[in-house]
Amino acid sequence: MSTIQVITKDVAPLVSADAVEALRPEAEKALSMLHDGSGAGNDFLGWVKLPCETPQSLLDDINATARSLRENCEVVVAIGIGGSYLGAKAVIEALGNSFAPYLNSGTPVLFAGQNIGEDYLYELIEYLQGKKFGIIVISKSGTTTEPAIAFRMLKELLEKQLGKAEASKRIVAITDAHRGALRQLATEEGYKTFVIADNVGGRFSVLTPVGLLPIAVAGYDIEQLIDGARLMQLEVANPSRDNIAMTYAMTRNALYRAGKKIEILVNYNPKLHYVAEWWKQLYGESEGKDHKGIFPAAVDNSTDLHSMGQWIQDGERSIFETVISVNSTVHALEIPYDDANLDGLNYIAAKRVDQVNKMAELGTRIAHVDGGVPNILITVPTINEHFLGELLYFFEAACGISGYMLGVNPFNQPGVEDYKRNMFALLAKPGYEKETEAINARLK
Amino acid sequence: MSTIQVITKDVAPLVSADAVEALRPEAEKALSMLHDGSGAGNDFLGWVKLPCETPQSLLDDINATARSLRENCEVVVAIGIGGSYLGAKAVIEALGNSFAPYLNSGTPVLFAGQNIGEDYLYELIEYLQGKKFGIIVISKSGTTTEPAIAFRMLKELLEKQLGKAEASKRIVAITDAHRGALRQLATEEGYKTFVIADNVGGRFSVLTPVGLLPIAVAGYDIEQLIDGARLMQLEVANPSRDNIAMTYAMTRNALYRAGKKIEILVNYNPKLHYVAEWWKQLYGESEGKDHKGIFPAAVDNSTDLHSMGQWIQDGERSIFETVISVNSTVHALEIPYDDANLDGLNYIAAKRVDQVNKMAELGTRIAHVDGGVPNILITVPTINEHFLGELLYFFEAACGISGYMLGVNPFNQPGVEDYKRNMFALLAKPGYEKETEAINARLK
Repeated sequence: MSTIQVITKDVAPLVSADAVEALRPEAEKALSMLHDGSGAGNDFLGWVKLPCETPQSLLDDINATARSLRENCEVVVAIGIGGSYLGAKAVIEALGNSFAPYLNSGTPVLFAGQNIGEDYLYELIEYLQGKKFGIIVISKSGTTTEPAIAFRMLKELLEKQLGKAEASKRIVAITDAHRGALRQLATEEGYKTFVIADNVGGRFSVLTPVGLLPIAVAGYDIEQLIDGARLMQLEVANPSRDNIAMTYAMTRNALYRAGKKIEILVNYNPKLHYVAEWWKQLYGESEGKDHKGIFPAAVDNSTDLHSMGQWIQDGERSIFETVISVNSTVHALEIPYDDANLDGLNYIAAKRVDQVNKMAELGTRIAHVDGGVPNILITVPTINEHFLGELLYFFEAACGISGYMLGVNPFNQPGVEDYKRNMFALLAKPGYEKETEAINARLK
Repeated sequence: MSTIQVITKDVAPLVSADAVEALRPEAEKALSMLHDGSGAGNDFLGWVKLPCETPQSLLDDINATARSLRENCEVVVAIGIGGSYLGAKAVIEALGNSFAPYLNSGTPVLFAGQNIGEDYLYELIEYLQGKKFGIIVISKSGTTTEPAIAFRMLKELLEKQLGKAEASKRIVAITDAHRGALRQLATEEGYKTFVIADNVGGRFSVLTPVGLLPIAVAGYDIEQLIDGARLMQLEVANPSRDNIAMTYAMTRNALYRAGKKIEILVNYNPKLHYVAEWWKQLYGESEGKDHKGIFPAAVDNSTDLHSMGQWIQDGERSIFETVISVNSTVHALEIPYDDANLDGLNYIAAKRVDQVNKMAELGTRIAHVDGGVPNILITVPTINEHFLGELLYFFEAACGISGYMLGVNPFNQPGVEDYKRNMFALLAKPGYEKETEAINARLK
């Protein structure tokens, strides 16, 4: 049995256990749609069985490629946006030392192509001057604007430093199996490549090479990550009463229908900040459509108890919280005794810092529930590759179920095209002549 | 005249210019309450005239102290939470190199006491072993749990490394003028100190030594920061039609009353991420009370166009956006021409990266407004100390006005006490015996 637990008693009294239970038939139907492919977006269900279907040979290939990059590069830049950025970033930040960039150890993985910041790119290129660096470029088409700009510039820099032939050995492309600009370039230049499957969308791609290669380069155990995901895949595949993905999906839909429009994902460990960012994409992009969907937000506590805490305690009663509680820290640190005790902390001397953190967490959950904020609690034994694998797959499965329960296609993102179309029109991209004319007329 | 502009035409058609204008009398009244002290929380209005009242001698003292810390320390740890963390963090991140931690230059300012992460503190202490480090400890009372734990541990480490006398020269305390544990300790140990005024709350303290000293240690020009704030103070002191703080406060209240419950602060420059975090505390803690208040959220674009973008475009129509648009970047970078042009980017070759970014921004604003998301646009000439000073004071002034228009006391935070009371009860803090008994009975 999975070691992750989902505890929902604190959504009462707003939503009773019976009210949650009443949604079980819907959740069962949604789960079956994920497995029999009878729902909307059924051409993007590759993630459902992906962990158990991932061959060892693929993991070996990724690990060998990562090793080669680590041996040949001082730093590796992963170029990608959206799901081609957030999954790897989430796992690497969760597992890394809080002060990793200051430690000058290992092979840092930097990110590019996740924004169009001119200063960001300028400073990245400045930093890479004279450094042995490698590139992982992640794009299904090879033409997405943000990563394409970054890749064009970093490829040029690398080729200037090493020549075209040598540069090609330090570039890995993760792209479509057959089509697209990046596949063509990779073939021409002889890049090592991995495939983005047609049936796995970006926000569900963390457990494919898209996420796994940067994570492996950063030095983490992708076999353990996949093992954890496999365990969870098996655990939430069937409509049992213990299916925690169904429990989470049912509970959050019950809360939404009862008027709770904002879900705040809460952590008490700053390393989980980007797991929350990944979760925001997963749920926001899957559910935010047809003028529906829970608004996903996140806080890092106890930091944000001194920021958003006041609003959460006393603002509009339109929110619920989902707390990720990590049972055990990696390191151990005791609060020292102090003779003078001016700060009055001796009552917690000899306690572990995390014991205090846990009481902040429990005290906050009680205060927020008392204040009218329903609470879902997700417990995770500790932060390592295995449990992250469980957690990521759990959130993916619950998202698929939840989106179908909401009555949307959880696997498309039509709204993302709207800004792109305007941007291309404004930039007078070939093929957008009509749109350019229209938008210019409008702006006059 | 200030160089920051606030453009509100795109809140129509939901909210007409007349509807915004109808709130002018309320905004005028709120502004006068800030200046005559006739409103709730009037013992916390020190920030209103603070920039113009900041003596040069204080800035000189802060700069001299910062210089001494820089000369004597490889790294300085700023210990504080809430407003004693976010203001300095926001300015330092906005002005710093995107890859600063990798550059091994200057005196990095690290932060502690803004969480109770055992692994975070453990890794910080591990990193500081054998390093020449200094401490800026920021706490009005000296007994706030998070910073008090961090300070107790780092002080012990520093004293072990250097002895008590030498350690005292590398510790600066920013605290109450007369009272409290930290003031007493500073007097006993002979720390250099700066004062937290009684009439300036934490979230309004970035332009006091609380924010200024860490910013100066990081190498930035606090005189320019204060100069910008002074300009803005004078600009928004009077109820003229050009008062942009009134404009912003009126517009967001009109949107809130029209049913827009979530405000998303949007940037297109990742360096502004923590300015948004600072803004979330400022507005969330000031307005989120009495079951009222706009829910503050933030996105970093174009990164988050591939995450929250779908929700914003097509989710529930309960949101509006406030975009911070930075006119000019600091560096210049052109997109190169590429003969093969497989990625199809040659149509933007020779353009500055920021030109593309600006079209992403404009294209997104148009798409979101078309999709039913009203838009407020705040333009800033560039990111430097001066304009940050203007921007920070602008947001403070608008927050005071907006909070009074909402009908709350914008200067208290009663809800923050609730989790603390429970935490102290759970930790059996002396003086909380009754609460401990009650909470234990409840948890049985």
